[in-house]
Amino acid sequence: MLGSLVQKNDTKILLVVLDGVGGLPVNGQTELEKANTPNLDRLTKVSATGLHIPVDYGITPGSGPGHLGIFGYDPLEYSIGRGILEALGLGLEVKDTDIAIRGNYATVRYEDGKAVVVDRRAGRIPTQENERITAKIQEAVKEIDGVKVIIKAGMEHRTAILLRFPEPLAPGSDEINDTDPQKVGSQPLQAKGENPEAQKVAQVVNKFVERVAEVLKDEPKANYLLLRGFSRKPDIPTMEEAFGLKACCVAVYPMYKGLASLVGMELIEFEGSSLKDEIEALKKVWNSYDFFFMHVKKTDSYGEDGNYEGKVSVIEEFDRFLPELLELKPDVVAITGDHSTPSVLKGHSWHPVPLLIHSPYVLGNTSDRFTERECLKGEIGIIPAKKIMNLLLANSLRLSKFGA
Amino acid sequence: MLGSLVQKNDTKILLVVLDGVGGLPVNGQTELEKANTPNLDRLTKVSATGLHIPVDYGITPGSGPGHLGIFGYDPLEYSIGRGILEALGLGLEVKDTDIAIRGNYATVRYEDGKAVVVDRRAGRIPTQENERITAKIQEAVKEIDGVKVIIKAGMEHRTAILLRFPEPLAPGSDEINDTDPQKVGSQPLQAKGENPEAQKVAQVVNKFVERVAEVLKDEPKANYLLLRGFSRKPDIPTMEEAFGLKACCVAVYPMYKGLASLVGMELIEFEGSSLKDEIEALKKVWNSYDFFFMHVKKTDSYGEDGNYEGKVSVIEEFDRFLPELLELKPDVVAITGDHSTPSVLKGHSWHPVPLLIHSPYVLGNTSDRFTERECLKGEIGIIPAKKIMNLLLANSLRLSKFGA
Repeated sequence: MLGSLVQKNDTKILLVVLDGVGGLPVNGQTELEKANTPNLDRLTKVSATGLHIPVDYGITPGSGPGHLGIFGYDPLEYSIGRGILEALGLGLEVKDTDIAIRGNYATVRYEDGKAVVVDRRAGRIPTQENERITAKIQEAVKEIDGVKVIIKAGMEHRTAILLRFPEPLAPGSDEINDTDPQKVGSQPLQAKGENPEAQKVAQVVNKFVERVAEVLKDEPKANYLLLRGFSRKPDIPTMEEAFGLKACCVAVYPMYKGLASLVGMELIEFEGSSLKDEIEALKKVWNSYDFFFMHVKKTDSYGEDGNYEGKVSVIEEFDRFLPELLELKPDVVAITGDHSTPSVLKGHSWHPVPLLIHSPYVLGNTSDRFTERECLKGEIGIIPAKKIMNLLLANSLRLSKFGA
Repeated sequence: MLGSLVQKNDTKILLVVLDGVGGLPVNGQTELEKANTPNLDRLTKVSATGLHIPVDYGITPGSGPGHLGIFGYDPLEYSIGRGILEALGLGLEVKDTDIAIRGNYATVRYEDGKAVVVDRRAGRIPTQENERITAKIQEAVKEIDGVKVIIKAGMEHRTAILLRFPEPLAPGSDEINDTDPQKVGSQPLQAKGENPEAQKVAQVVNKFVERVAEVLKDEPKANYLLLRGFSRKPDIPTMEEAFGLKACCVAVYPMYKGLASLVGMELIEFEGSSLKDEIEALKKVWNSYDFFFMHVKKTDSYGEDGNYEGKVSVIEEFDRFLPELLELKPDVVAITGDHSTPSVLKGHSWHPVPLLIHSPYVLGNTSDRFTERECLKGEIGIIPAKKIMNLLLANSLRLSKFGA
């Protein structure tokens, strides 16, 4: 529905995602409540506040659906396969003609010439070992039947593989079963396609697996590659198409850059990885875009580690840099997370995420601080993440009237 | 969507339904506000709070949709026919091969051998009279064309009838018009099926009505039976299938047991009907289930009677027993109603119903009391009843992450 209402102007929208910022109380206070955040407090008092639900009540989102939602896309409508996310996370550029796959190095033994899985993760080989083996495969297997092979090492036993076909792929051509049998003592599964298009892809996959097994046959541990999460680049309209926004992304970690690039954001390259570096990068390109997605990763990392104090300190660090961000004078500022990552849960959670929107067109004066409980008092209420973009466009006067 | 995310563990979830607990102010205070509830207050302060909407804004639910919603089923997707509800309410076990019907004893006179309705409720005969007549019918009409007839007396002129067919019934086989013409002076209608399967059922129905009229021909008042609400047992996935929960029901009234059994809950048999009896029953089976539905009826009964003080006293009685319930140490406790029954309305209403969820993973400290107005301040917000189950599963860590 937004499509026909979208109008352009020269406003600038800044969306800051503090990854996993929502939390739960420890000794009565959440990480946001514990943090000393004078600048955020000041901004909150003159902003619209509320919370968003990333996917649905009670649903804990992965990073893919978490970000799609706050970018304005329904995470139930657009799904990002595991292979795609893995490839993006390792910094691979995924094209429309690619099948992306998550690979796990494994140990097999051979019985009557047939592989039987002994260890599904090859004893979690060191990442360096993975890099050596992956380079060896890439060197030996560059192409199969005209399909280009791109393989990149991840952490420990993990890799991402792209099979780059010469022609566009049909929808459903990634409907292929995992070859990982999920059980030690079983044979790896043959890749099979659910439909004729996928069957063609599966043939290439099976040849690839054979070639890799041949290359690795003398490796003591990682002598096989199990494949999972076959997926194509999702067919998502760009932010320019959907919202009329020329958008860019300032992020450090490859996965978030990858997610941003899926919706057509341009990736801003910069040196360093600190908050200061990100803000400097923003400043440099401030005149060139309408929409700026700035990603802060460490709130989530500390939450995942169960490091409450660490998460508090990242929030405080962000608070110190907030005035510099505001000096850019964005017309609309939104601050939120892609999901909650409470330290007490050491992982993502389902809890609604605090959200703040500042523009000249808000009520304000409803919440004293940017916390889970204070944001409950705000004018936004508890909304689905995918509706945040409606509010950002409205607050930048980029939506025309609906109906006469 | 929940289906694929459900995972099992050994947590225990307790859902207490205070039937019709929501209310409206009398002298400024609702029943919940008036009640002295120190234990509930204490629990509320450390719980997530909010309100739920049973079906939709402004919609007053019957007991069927009210309960289906809080059991996690969309009450607009799964409907429970009037005949089924009547049968369940009278404690009949409904099978897949049954057509359930609500029957009303009526008075007819005969003109040229044709029945004409004189009183659609047979002067609201006493229940005892109903029981005598019903027994007489059951004795005389045990079967029609191989279809077993089960008839049970309700209050005054009401009965429930099950026609138990030898084979499974096709969907739509209950699409049969009411035989009640709704008007005095009219002839009772013939039962007609909307489709071939329903037509076969209608033939049996018409024979049944004739046989009953024959049996009752000398009764002074109740000499006819009008039929309404033809319905089959709805095809609802069990709670085990939908949510991976082994669920049981502790309730006194047949209708609520029947609703619970429709979603696959096991019914716990116990002596007595007091709150204390229900709690003792819960204790005995505490080790055998994952999910416990405890139903408290009297809040609704007093509301329906317009007895404000009575409803207040039931809430206070529940409060006194709450500590005993909490001693069971459920991992997740939810307390709510299936709908509101304000004493001032003397009936069910559309008002959102207070909801409390306690688990280790809530913010808490948002509402001081379990009342309509205090729950508005809570972290749950105002949610559709069917989403409560999402939250119960999330809070018991029974949902895996959505998307990578």
